[in-house]
Amino acid sequence: MKKKTTNTALLCSGSAAKTLLFRFLPILAWLPRYPVKEWLLGDIISGFSVGIMHLPQGLAYALLAGLPPVTGLYSAFYPVLTYFFFGTSRHVSVGPFAVISVMIGSVMESLVPSENFLESINGTNVTVNTILRDATRVEAVATLTVLVGIFQVTLGLLQFGFVVTYLSDPLVRGYTTAAAVQVLVSQLKYILGVQVGEYAGPLSMILVFVEICKRVPETKVGALVTGLIAMVAILAVKLLNAKLAKKLPIPIPIELLTIIVSTGISYGADLNGHFGVDVVGNIPSGLRPPVAPNASYFGKVVGNAFAIAVVSYAICISLGKIFALKHGYKVDSNQELIALGLSNFFGGFFQCFSISTSMSRTLVQESTGGHSQMAGVVSCLIILVTILKIGELFRELPKAILAAIIIVNLKGMFKQFSDIRMLWRSNRVDLLIWLLTFVATLLLNLDMGLGVAVVFALLTVIFRTQLPHYSILGQVSMTDVYKDVAEYHKAEEIPGVKIFRSSATVYFANAELYAEALKKKVSGIDVDYLIEKKKKALKKQKRQQKKDKKEEAKRMKVCLSGILWLSPHKACGEPTLESLGLPKPSVHSVILDFTPVNFVDTVSIKILKNIFRDFREIEVDIFLVGCHDSVITQLEKGNFFSQTLTKHQLFASVHDAVTYITRERGESLLGAATVSR
Amino acid sequence: MKKKTTNTALLCSGSAAKTLLFRFLPILAWLPRYPVKEWLLGDIISGFSVGIMHLPQGLAYALLAGLPPVTGLYSAFYPVLTYFFFGTSRHVSVGPFAVISVMIGSVMESLVPSENFLESINGTNVTVNTILRDATRVEAVATLTVLVGIFQVTLGLLQFGFVVTYLSDPLVRGYTTAAAVQVLVSQLKYILGVQVGEYAGPLSMILVFVEICKRVPETKVGALVTGLIAMVAILAVKLLNAKLAKKLPIPIPIELLTIIVSTGISYGADLNGHFGVDVVGNIPSGLRPPVAPNASYFGKVVGNAFAIAVVSYAICISLGKIFALKHGYKVDSNQELIALGLSNFFGGFFQCFSISTSMSRTLVQESTGGHSQMAGVVSCLIILVTILKIGELFRELPKAILAAIIIVNLKGMFKQFSDIRMLWRSNRVDLLIWLLTFVATLLLNLDMGLGVAVVFALLTVIFRTQLPHYSILGQVSMTDVYKDVAEYHKAEEIPGVKIFRSSATVYFANAELYAEALKKKVSGIDVDYLIEKKKKALKKQKRQQKKDKKEEAKRMKVCLSGILWLSPHKACGEPTLESLGLPKPSVHSVILDFTPVNFVDTVSIKILKNIFRDFREIEVDIFLVGCHDSVITQLEKGNFFSQTLTKHQLFASVHDAVTYITRERGESLLGAATVSR
Repeated sequence: MKKKTTNTALLCSGSAAKTLLFRFLPILAWLPRYPVKEWLLGDIISGFSVGIMHLPQGLAYALLAGLPPVTGLYSAFYPVLTYFFFGTSRHVSVGPFAVISVMIGSVMESLVPSENFLESINGTNVTVNTILRDATRVEAVATLTVLVGIFQVTLGLLQFGFVVTYLSDPLVRGYTTAAAVQVLVSQLKYILGVQVGEYAGPLSMILVFVEICKRVPETKVGALVTGLIAMVAILAVKLLNAKLAKKLPIPIPIELLTIIVSTGISYGADLNGHFGVDVVGNIPSGLRPPVAPNASYFGKVVGNAFAIAVVSYAICISLGKIFALKHGYKVDSNQELIALGLSNFFGGFFQCFSISTSMSRTLVQESTGGHSQMAGVVSCLIILVTILKIGELFRELPKAILAAIIIVNLKGMFKQFSDIRMLWRSNRVDLLIWLLTFVATLLLNLDMGLGVAVVFALLTVIFRTQLPHYSILGQVSMTDVYKDVAEYHKAEEIPGVKIFRSSATVYFANAELYAEALKKKVSGIDVDYLIEKKKKALKKQKRQQKKDKKEEAKRMKVCLSGILWLSPHKACGEPTLESLGLPKPSVHSVILDFTPVNFVDTVSIKILKNIFRDFREIEVDIFLVGCHDSVITQLEKGNFFSQTLTKHQLFASVHDAVTYITRERGESLLGAATVSR
Repeated sequence: MKKKTTNTALLCSGSAAKTLLFRFLPILAWLPRYPVKEWLLGDIISGFSVGIMHLPQGLAYALLAGLPPVTGLYSAFYPVLTYFFFGTSRHVSVGPFAVISVMIGSVMESLVPSENFLESINGTNVTVNTILRDATRVEAVATLTVLVGIFQVTLGLLQFGFVVTYLSDPLVRGYTTAAAVQVLVSQLKYILGVQVGEYAGPLSMILVFVEICKRVPETKVGALVTGLIAMVAILAVKLLNAKLAKKLPIPIPIELLTIIVSTGISYGADLNGHFGVDVVGNIPSGLRPPVAPNASYFGKVVGNAFAIAVVSYAICISLGKIFALKHGYKVDSNQELIALGLSNFFGGFFQCFSISTSMSRTLVQESTGGHSQMAGVVSCLIILVTILKIGELFRELPKAILAAIIIVNLKGMFKQFSDIRMLWRSNRVDLLIWLLTFVATLLLNLDMGLGVAVVFALLTVIFRTQLPHYSILGQVSMTDVYKDVAEYHKAEEIPGVKIFRSSATVYFANAELYAEALKKKVSGIDVDYLIEKKKKALKKQKRQQKKDKKEEAKRMKVCLSGILWLSPHKACGEPTLESLGLPKPSVHSVILDFTPVNFVDTVSIKILKNIFRDFREIEVDIFLVGCHDSVITQLEKGNFFSQTLTKHQLFASVHDAVTYITRERGESLLGAATVSR
């Protein structure tokens, strides 16, 4: 018997280990079951299409990140290969992405600015030593990339994939739109062919834009014409691709064609020499041995690395989920984080910069028939061939062409401006988040902007609960449904009973407003005024009694009975409003509907206690209804209940309380009637 | 007729103006009705008691703020007089307060550090030119005070008195406790009689404490003995005062006695000369003409001014409300803000530093029979006499005595440490706020600490809603009450129906968790797995149909009927789980209880839509119940409802939905039975 158990336990632990292994290396699960006959052809075609998109995009996004072009090719190779083993999404195309690249670019410009590498040749002509600068930047970006990877893997292992929930949809869309504007501004200099200084920190985009505007007269016509022609051509063919999507086996690789043709023209016409058109320059052939990152940069890039880690994951997982939903499989959000992290981590050792997934490539990968990450491997082969043999041919490729490719690829992100109209109609608070994220990201740059946006988005939750809608409920006749009397004509207040509801939870930031609104809404009674009156009357009574006693002592038994008649009837017991000659409020019961209350804190409990005390003071019964179990527990712990404030004042629903009140009142009326009879 | 209306309008506007005037100058309302006979004596006694407390406290708190002692006397005069006209609380004693003074002190130490005024006498002995430093500090503090006043008046006019609601009770108590520790550390040097450098910025308190510890061997015995004796004496007499409170007409003015006696001893024994005990020094006689603040400091102190404005108001209003409640009158929170602001604003021109209200003085003012701010005027007279004639006598007063007075007055704030135990039992989240505020304020100082604490307190709202409690509800038999089946044994699930509730509102930060929890809790169905299976089966079916068609085309009419029989029954219509050969889930209906939902945003609407789509996909009816009106409006605006997702799926309560389901199911069963019969 015991042996059996052990065996089962072993079996169990064995299968648990297997499950764990399958989870961390998803390839073990899907590769053996890969349906070669059905999927392979699609994956090869799709991989080929994606590969020839990787090539121009890699070069372009390296430019955007302020790095030598070849790093873009590396980034389209190593991380993709790593993701093949660890990823759970079958359709996303990991690799360089505009938003992440521009984030890296801004880090590079502040960390390793070109001005640190100024050299004077012949003593007069001051130029930037780009070779030295690029070498330094490659070293710095390796550190950044490894750190991004470490953050992502750690978050993934800690099952912290949920951090992206803080990046709500409106926030991400506002953010990527702002990033697109940043990218556009950063590429203008290449299209215009002008030299612009590097800026870092808040407002840098504005400063760059101002400088570009100033330098418009210096525009190099060659670069501008090259860039514009390329943009028009790419845009036109992309539209054509979209229209003929069903007829073409793979989309026309216009970006590849553009860079091939333009490199040819550039080489033939010597655009660089004759027209001063900036070209890509040397692209070294072959792969490099791995290099350890430089630890001295760790401290300087840690904040940016975290921002990049989160954004890159947010984009990757949102795309992954869209396609998983479409094709009916699941992506494991924590495993995705680990996969992305490992891709970045290993990539960092091989001169890659941080990657994410690109919307445009993913769409192509899926639409050309890609079924699995096998397509990624195929694209890797194409990039590998390029790195080994073809890359160096592109040294005459004008930078304006790459800028054109980048700008055209922003189209999708610019379309997000239409969110404004949509959100205006559907949800103004989300619109506010979108706009604030957009503006903050434009003004404060991509790292600080993100932080501000996240904090603001969280604060909107406070704002939403801080100014809730307070209402008085009435019964919809003949039902147990209670609705806002101000909105539903059919809802009628029950005579003598006020049912009060706030649309939000009650906590420290709105507890006082709740109390005020309650006292205001329960019209017919000025609670505070009545209490004040009562206190005054009580004081007067006391003074009177003192006086009476003194006089009594003076006069010694003279007209004793007369004085006794003067003092109120119930003087010895608890004095009532009636005995003090004060008017009784027209409402006899107040019901607080607590269904929307999610939690209570010490502040709200204190104020709630005050409310109960005040209403008791003016002889109004008060009830708490619809408290969720967790709220009741919190009330108990917070010493809400006491001898005078018992759980008998709690009811499950408004209707229960109303039934109780009408029965009690009815009986007491009946009782009174019986007595008077 | 028309004339009459105009008259009435004039009358109305006249009375409106009057109301407004009475609101802004409350003295116009209460002074004419001042019951001289009943209140005046009490106010005079109370004012006298408070006045003789003002004197030592003013000197002490000026020391705390790093300013010349006479400014403490000014601060106990001008602001109190201003508050007399504008304040609505009858019992608070405005004037210098420890927390505010230490905040000012830290601003002074960073803005006008002593080291800027080092002078060498005889070329070797380097000392601080205190006269020049104090003159500069008085100028700087005037700017700060005026700015605090401007902030407060502006906030008051904008009716922004509610900002203090962000300073929840646990936060304020944690903050003042930390401030008390800061004050204690800042006074240690006077008690020990050692010289300590000035530190500013984060961690400065720790640095000061470390330096004091290092310098303990340099302790001047004279100062230490003076301070300790004073502390013991004051503490003892205060305890006595508390015990004999009912028998004494006014409490023994031990603080005043201490400074008089100690000044006498100090003068007689020449403590300064013989024992090197630090003394207060010159206190100029007479009032000064008003001086405009130096605008050049505005930019440097704006952040601190805001923090001081908010804290000073928070303390003032909370004390004011306590006593208003006790005595049955109302304080107008916005008018209080204006009154405090004007007090600071005018004070700023007369060398005052920012004031608030002091707990200890307010208690004395109330307990000695004070009825109104008339007591403030009486205390002002005492301070005026001191400033004009007596102040200069105190030049030999040892600083250690003032430090002793400050430290003893911290007793009340140190008592707040017991909050920890109380909050541990009643509310852990509030405890967390308390502790974080305390630690942040100690480490980051009073300005940054406050900011961090406020942000953290607001974020707790997010945390509280982010990890809610998800539960499945069951019916408490024979009632319309539905409770968590995991907690209530009497609650029983209705067969085939799952009722799901989250304890929190559903919004972007927890919407995905909500969906996940729902799919997990609705046990018996693996929703995603079923959907995946269904998609696969559908694909297979399609492929099969294609194949069939091809084969059909090939074979041409051969065994046509056989193929038709192979294809599922409902192939032309919507394929069902049954027709695809998949198991039907054991649950036929899911009810989402939305009563705790305060609002929905675009993210939660999207996820909710997905939930509805998924459950429809596996043929489970899904209903939304208990939505508040505002939530329904938001759902409508967010395009939640569609042709397939109509308002028929909304119900007012869980019970309504359950009734509907059982009736429908009952009928359909009945219908089936009828058909089969």
